[in-house]
Amino acid sequence: MADAQFDLAGAIRTIPDYPKPGVMFRDITTLLADPVAFGETVERLVAPFRDIGADKVAGVEARGFILGGALAHQLSAGFVPIRKRGKLPHETVRVAYSLEYGLDEIEMHRDAVKAGEKVILTDDLIATGGTAEGAVKLLRQLGAEIVAACFVIDLPDLGGRKKLEALGVPVRTLVEFEGD
Amino acid sequence: MADAQFDLAGAIRTIPDYPKPGVMFRDITTLLADPVAFGETVERLVAPFRDIGADKVAGVEARGFILGGALAHQLSAGFVPIRKRGKLPHETVRVAYSLEYGLDEIEMHRDAVKAGEKVILTDDLIATGGTAEGAVKLLRQLGAEIVAACFVIDLPDLGGRKKLEALGVPVRTLVEFEGD
Repeated sequence: MADAQFDLAGAIRTIPDYPKPGVMFRDITTLLADPVAFGETVERLVAPFRDIGADKVAGVEARGFILGGALAHQLSAGFVPIRKRGKLPHETVRVAYSLEYGLDEIEMHRDAVKAGEKVILTDDLIATGGTAEGAVKLLRQLGAEIVAACFVIDLPDLGGRKKLEALGVPVRTLVEFEGD
Repeated sequence: MADAQFDLAGAIRTIPDYPKPGVMFRDITTLLADPVAFGETVERLVAPFRDIGADKVAGVEARGFILGGALAHQLSAGFVPIRKRGKLPHETVRVAYSLEYGLDEIEMHRDAVKAGEKVILTDDLIATGGTAEGAVKLLRQLGAEIVAACFVIDLPDLGGRKKLEALGVPVRTLVEFEGD
């Protein structure tokens, strides 16, 4: 870590009542736009993984693509997109996951990961962990070894981190917002 | 360039008749998933820009986020997302652009770029250039100096590169596919 004192949480903008009343939306675009904050974020996320020989970084559409691209390049790994249904042009594996109302689906290309490859999963934020749990299922269906899942923001009250840890996935996060 | 002989075009998968008959879809997921190809792509894209002092890299949703994250980090710049309408939580500027049928709209946060900042625009591919032209308008509306637009793939027959150059934007691409 270049500077343990750097205030990453302070670089994140909070938008009250978005997308609906009572929700405090954590907007990382202000962090991404700040070269120092963005650089710190990438460096801190990858720091524990520099020597593990990760083959791929899998990022969840869309904000997970921003971090995932930077992380993959930093680790000399490949990047794998995990996308909403219907966005990938080749043969996919697909999983449904629960949202607050109803279901959504994410997909990966079937040939995106080979059995035994070491994969790091990333997204900007973990809340209930529904999407991340779906991503873990897809990666394991393809035989990946998920060495870690990493997120900039953890909303611990929503339980996503514990859900992933219960699946045996080590979780790394940089900033917590409680009471969300 | 680490190895001018490396065949980036060969790392891109072509999917005939996707998303409709007669279209040769250029699928960069195979390039992204290959650590050597992805690393080469990032290094070659940023090579001319290492010493220009870019403030921001602006990436177009969604594949432009993957490259944009890596490029921004490599250049010690901030990253700015250019998104489809309705995805950004704070005050935005918006522009409509033509698709083959009808219009689409992209947005940026109004505070994403400050007047006079040097910005590099990126996406995976330039075809007709409609989206990129819209992005140029948004960035200039905010007072950005667009120092370059860079893309992995150019489809020169579709005229996007010339469209951007006519707007005074220097264009950098790595791979051309003609006859598309």
